[in-house]
Amino acid sequence: MSETELHDEPAAAESQLDEDDLLRPEFVAAVLEAVDAGDHEAARTLVAPLHPADIADLVELTPADQRADLVTAIPDLIDGDVLAEMNDWVREALVDALEPHQVADIAAELDTDDAVAIIEDMDVEDQREVLRALDPDDRAAIEEALSYPEESAGRLMQRELIAVPEHWTVGHVLDYLRGNDALTTDFWEIFVVDPSHKPIGTCALSWILRTPRGITISDVMKREQTLIPVDMDQEEVALRFQKYALISAAVVDPNGRLVGMITVDDVVHIISQEAGEDILRLSGAGEGDINEPVLLTVRTRLTWLFVNLGTAMLAASVVGLFQGEIAKFALLAVLMPIVSGMGGNAGTQTLAVVVRAIATNQLTESNTLRMIWRELRIAMANGATLGLAIGTGTMLVYGIPWLAIVIAMAMVINNLIAGLAGVLIPVTLDRLRVDPAVASAVFVTMMTDVMGFFSFLGLATLVGLGS
Amino acid sequence: MSETELHDEPAAAESQLDEDDLLRPEFVAAVLEAVDAGDHEAARTLVAPLHPADIADLVELTPADQRADLVTAIPDLIDGDVLAEMNDWVREALVDALEPHQVADIAAELDTDDAVAIIEDMDVEDQREVLRALDPDDRAAIEEALSYPEESAGRLMQRELIAVPEHWTVGHVLDYLRGNDALTTDFWEIFVVDPSHKPIGTCALSWILRTPRGITISDVMKREQTLIPVDMDQEEVALRFQKYALISAAVVDPNGRLVGMITVDDVVHIISQEAGEDILRLSGAGEGDINEPVLLTVRTRLTWLFVNLGTAMLAASVVGLFQGEIAKFALLAVLMPIVSGMGGNAGTQTLAVVVRAIATNQLTESNTLRMIWRELRIAMANGATLGLAIGTGTMLVYGIPWLAIVIAMAMVINNLIAGLAGVLIPVTLDRLRVDPAVASAVFVTMMTDVMGFFSFLGLATLVGLGS
Repeated sequence: MSETELHDEPAAAESQLDEDDLLRPEFVAAVLEAVDAGDHEAARTLVAPLHPADIADLVELTPADQRADLVTAIPDLIDGDVLAEMNDWVREALVDALEPHQVADIAAELDTDDAVAIIEDMDVEDQREVLRALDPDDRAAIEEALSYPEESAGRLMQRELIAVPEHWTVGHVLDYLRGNDALTTDFWEIFVVDPSHKPIGTCALSWILRTPRGITISDVMKREQTLIPVDMDQEEVALRFQKYALISAAVVDPNGRLVGMITVDDVVHIISQEAGEDILRLSGAGEGDINEPVLLTVRTRLTWLFVNLGTAMLAASVVGLFQGEIAKFALLAVLMPIVSGMGGNAGTQTLAVVVRAIATNQLTESNTLRMIWRELRIAMANGATLGLAIGTGTMLVYGIPWLAIVIAMAMVINNLIAGLAGVLIPVTLDRLRVDPAVASAVFVTMMTDVMGFFSFLGLATLVGLGS
Repeated sequence: MSETELHDEPAAAESQLDEDDLLRPEFVAAVLEAVDAGDHEAARTLVAPLHPADIADLVELTPADQRADLVTAIPDLIDGDVLAEMNDWVREALVDALEPHQVADIAAELDTDDAVAIIEDMDVEDQREVLRALDPDDRAAIEEALSYPEESAGRLMQRELIAVPEHWTVGHVLDYLRGNDALTTDFWEIFVVDPSHKPIGTCALSWILRTPRGITISDVMKREQTLIPVDMDQEEVALRFQKYALISAAVVDPNGRLVGMITVDDVVHIISQEAGEDILRLSGAGEGDINEPVLLTVRTRLTWLFVNLGTAMLAASVVGLFQGEIAKFALLAVLMPIVSGMGGNAGTQTLAVVVRAIATNQLTESNTLRMIWRELRIAMANGATLGLAIGTGTMLVYGIPWLAIVIAMAMVINNLIAGLAGVLIPVTLDRLRVDPAVASAVFVTMMTDVMGFFSFLGLATLVGLGS
């Protein structure tokens, strides 16, 4: 292929993307039309210029029942790089439809981490068959990766890396890199190891490039390095990459020996996923993956809704205590959802801030007390303002002074409850090593509902409204 | 400093971190005690071994009124790298306390992007003074960066990069890099430009290292490149880095000329921030920065709470329509919050999933209809199950068949409303170019509150309950 052709390709591909880097709907429709019409050549011409990430998007945007046809039409374009970019659920369905030896062919051409991502979700039976079809080196690498826990550094790392002894010179390193075609090309730093293969330093490629051949590598390398234990959870790995602005990092086994490397491009999607999943967990939407089978989604969401049904019934039973008062003075039933609802809103605000602060390691033991005090002051300010507003409004509309006073006071009380619960519940759960994003919302809204109803109806009863 | 000492440093620093990479509270307390006691030498000994990111954390974890003392005790340890890692609000307060020439000294040693981050939040007056104190080259670079919109690629990019003409050989490039001490060392790829300084290709350093000196750079470079327009929003930049797994990318001006480079480590925190801020926006917590001044936080949150107060009053007015029925049959008031609350929960689940899918570019025009249909099926399944449960429960507890039928039907209806509103509202807002995370929740809970009360109380009235 001539250089000009190569250069023209991205331009052609870009025209299929809108200003948000998304595939245009007309483009997706045109590809699917070609596939439907059996015109595989036309489909190939359209898809071939795309980046693997965009081909993966194309498959995801295709309705589930047409994906097999699309893949059959352009089988060679759906390569390992495309599969590696694909949503887990969509990929799993595609891979299930392939023969084990086809999967093995795809896995063989990928780095360990991408190969593992494709194989790890298969049935044990199919997995074994794929592994048998691989050559011994690849098989050993993938089997070892699969021996580490899911979502650990061991699954995430690639074994392909450059490690050199510390007595080598820069010239030695250059000759080694130029002379070994089998070495990986995907690396940004090289690791310097001692004779027992323990990493003792890291050297960015830019330093090697800028150093004369005669200098020893140990004089250029950086000795402070961030090592990743092989069993570290991927969320911790992501936070460490983020905190220390890493491009790549050495992964070490429990004996401190270098076993792999994680590069930032493998971590970027985890950073985004972990940061984004708090919103899904807090609302009880599970993984919130739009490609998940509907039945699984229903099960996840229903579990959460049933827990909330319990707390809603608890709150209702509080209202039940005041049926007599409500029957005599139905206005109480009209106004009570305002108090509980506003408490819920304020509690959710605090909760969202605290959950994010915990997730980003900004809220630690050192500043928890300060955080509680901060949220209490905010709750007092909000409660006072809202109480004044709703009290004045109630007075103007209904002209009943005690009703105005009661709803204003209930608003202040429930805002304080919301602020306190919004900090204390997630912080306590975090101390107990329970994910605060998953469990906090139920407790916080339970508190604001129950206390909203109780403070408003209770105060009303106390001052003799509805008697 | 000998190698052994250098090697020991990270070990010493690590012992100050707990298993989550956080500074231990005892360590923070020890530093502050030393500062309080005026023992600056002890404070320095403790802090010196830390990574700049950890020193930044230390300042953030220090109560606001003790930060000035801390910084005064160890002024030279709070360098540009530390400031660049610091929370915006905390940094702003520190920088405000410095003399302009001190800020200029710090800015001079940083890459453009980090220098801009420090200077951009200053008063125009102070900014001008800092710029005057810089040498002309640095000043020009920073002034140019400041001329681009906030949160754009122009603010994010560094101007320090390596660009070479395409006719150069690898050997030529190596000699150029080795011979120019003034060049940056922070680069992972070099850019190949034509005579008008337009980028025509990118070359990863690993390819240069593995290629013999005689080969021309244009034969090694990759011609497909992802160019970043200088005025692109940083959120789009982050999505592009993520999608194409970029390590660095060329930034071009409207004429297509290379003006800067963005590296992945500058983007990683934006990816995390953008992914994490949806939860804060959806709950109306603004930026949700725990270092923001309390008064600003109160104002942001109150704005949101007042909007919600409006919708809560609207929902209350729906209840008000049925005061007569409630007075006769107060059980309606007891059960009605269950219907509205459960609808709110279901709506929030759908909303969270849809907002994430939009933010991650997974939900596009091509699959919106499929998404609506998916959520409707889930809503039907959830509504039917919850309706059956609450209907049966109501029958068992109160033994009133019509009440059980009414609450079951209201539950089904409100779940459908929740599912529909949860998709349609954010999708519509996105089409109107309004951030769905900011505005959706108000509308969705308004719908589920109003329709929850209306369907339950309305059906109850229809079948003659409470008459």
